[in-house]
Amino acid sequence: MDKRPIGVFDSGAGGLTAVRQLQAILPGENIVYFGDTGRVPYGTRSPATIQQYAEQDIRFLLSQDVKFILAACGTVSSTLPKSYTDSLPVPYVGVVGAAVDAAIAATKNKRIGVIATPATIRSKSYEQRLKASLPDVQVFPRACPMFVPLVENGYVKPHDPITTAIATEYLEEIRRQGVDTLILGCTHYPLIAHIIADVMGPDVTLIDAGREAALKAHDALAQLNLLSNSGTGHTRYYVSDSAESFAAAVKLFVGPQSSSEASHVAIENY
Amino acid sequence: MDKRPIGVFDSGAGGLTAVRQLQAILPGENIVYFGDTGRVPYGTRSPATIQQYAEQDIRFLLSQDVKFILAACGTVSSTLPKSYTDSLPVPYVGVVGAAVDAAIAATKNKRIGVIATPATIRSKSYEQRLKASLPDVQVFPRACPMFVPLVENGYVKPHDPITTAIATEYLEEIRRQGVDTLILGCTHYPLIAHIIADVMGPDVTLIDAGREAALKAHDALAQLNLLSNSGTGHTRYYVSDSAESFAAAVKLFVGPQSSSEASHVAIENY
Repeated sequence: MDKRPIGVFDSGAGGLTAVRQLQAILPGENIVYFGDTGRVPYGTRSPATIQQYAEQDIRFLLSQDVKFILAACGTVSSTLPKSYTDSLPVPYVGVVGAAVDAAIAATKNKRIGVIATPATIRSKSYEQRLKASLPDVQVFPRACPMFVPLVENGYVKPHDPITTAIATEYLEEIRRQGVDTLILGCTHYPLIAHIIADVMGPDVTLIDAGREAALKAHDALAQLNLLSNSGTGHTRYYVSDSAESFAAAVKLFVGPQSSSEASHVAIENY
Repeated sequence: MDKRPIGVFDSGAGGLTAVRQLQAILPGENIVYFGDTGRVPYGTRSPATIQQYAEQDIRFLLSQDVKFILAACGTVSSTLPKSYTDSLPVPYVGVVGAAVDAAIAATKNKRIGVIATPATIRSKSYEQRLKASLPDVQVFPRACPMFVPLVENGYVKPHDPITTAIATEYLEEIRRQGVDTLILGCTHYPLIAHIIADVMGPDVTLIDAGREAALKAHDALAQLNLLSNSGTGHTRYYVSDSAESFAAAVKLFVGPQSSSEASHVAIENY
């Protein structure tokens, strides 16, 4: 029984979908979320800058006495070297590794699609890790640049005609290639998973990276006997830009009934 | 006859629509463009930070020996105090002031719509300046957050169904209010002016802030006898993030036949 919080961080608000999954899978856990909204997006920065930002984010979470760190940022989790994450004083999981493991476990025909932001697709991080785990896998990547603004502006209701039209355009080629597994490689995408599923059809397994990372967190904490199984956990939110404007993101990503108060952190001091 | 270039700056690539207008109105002029792509967007920053960034941008342009400065950034041109812009060693025009003057000249029924990014609409900069110039004007503002990603992802062809659907949703209330003039208060919007015009109908005058600023630049330079009327001008592009990825923006905003090579500037040194 360990009441210390789980630490989650992302370059912005998208990682809140991982918080939602953690709350569902581990309802007794306290959570500390840090969104680096003042320096978002990370995807266009150099690897050295990304690593420097991620190390500051992690130092902030450690200052909050977290017992586990979940990197909900695809860019960070494909940039941080294993030597660094292995040296952390608490266990660590990143969304990319978690999604890759789940996709490898799910595929039968070894044809896997990956959809993500242009920066993540350009980095080939999912592709490289998939091929490292399963050398004869065939990977079909596709950048979906409109999905983040569509989600952030609320075009997320079932069968939304605009999101459906754009998803059909983006996914046509991947669908035609007969993939049986599709990685949602951006933490915003689970909010339109129902529309993506409509386009891909019932035979394709969608992999939600945030959910897979939350499941890995559960397993790691259980193995180390660090779970908090009793009571209802509390989530605290911290951001590096305006705390006021973050409440709307919490409502969108975590749910309208969630407590959404956020505090400001001067992340450059960590 | 003054061959020194005109300096144009913006937080990103949107100000390139003003470059396109300058090239059309003043084909003999050399132009230096600076896009602060490493620190975009400005709209969410504090006024002190916006002013600091703008002063650095202007110092860079002055280092290029410009004879005129055009602030193609709505955020900057509504933030910089007149005392500062009046103290500059060369004449200055901002897109907000230019658009407001043109809208006041165009309206007959004194009902003016303003569409822009959420940050610009929240700042009420157009609204306040319109009311300062014409106290009994009625202003109908509307944030259009999807227009920038739609333009940047190429949904700009005539009658594009997705942009038309979203424009219809955004503009319905303004149209119903019977405005006779609509300010395109974001430099991205001229690229979908044909779609906005389809939705608003033929009786509404659209005001392109970049074009109005380019016309003001022409008039100011003519009055000061600083025009360059002979030959064909050359445009040089500078950015604070990756110069390679900027070429696509130049093709999109200025035109496919334009020379699009950009150079990197370490703007924090200015």
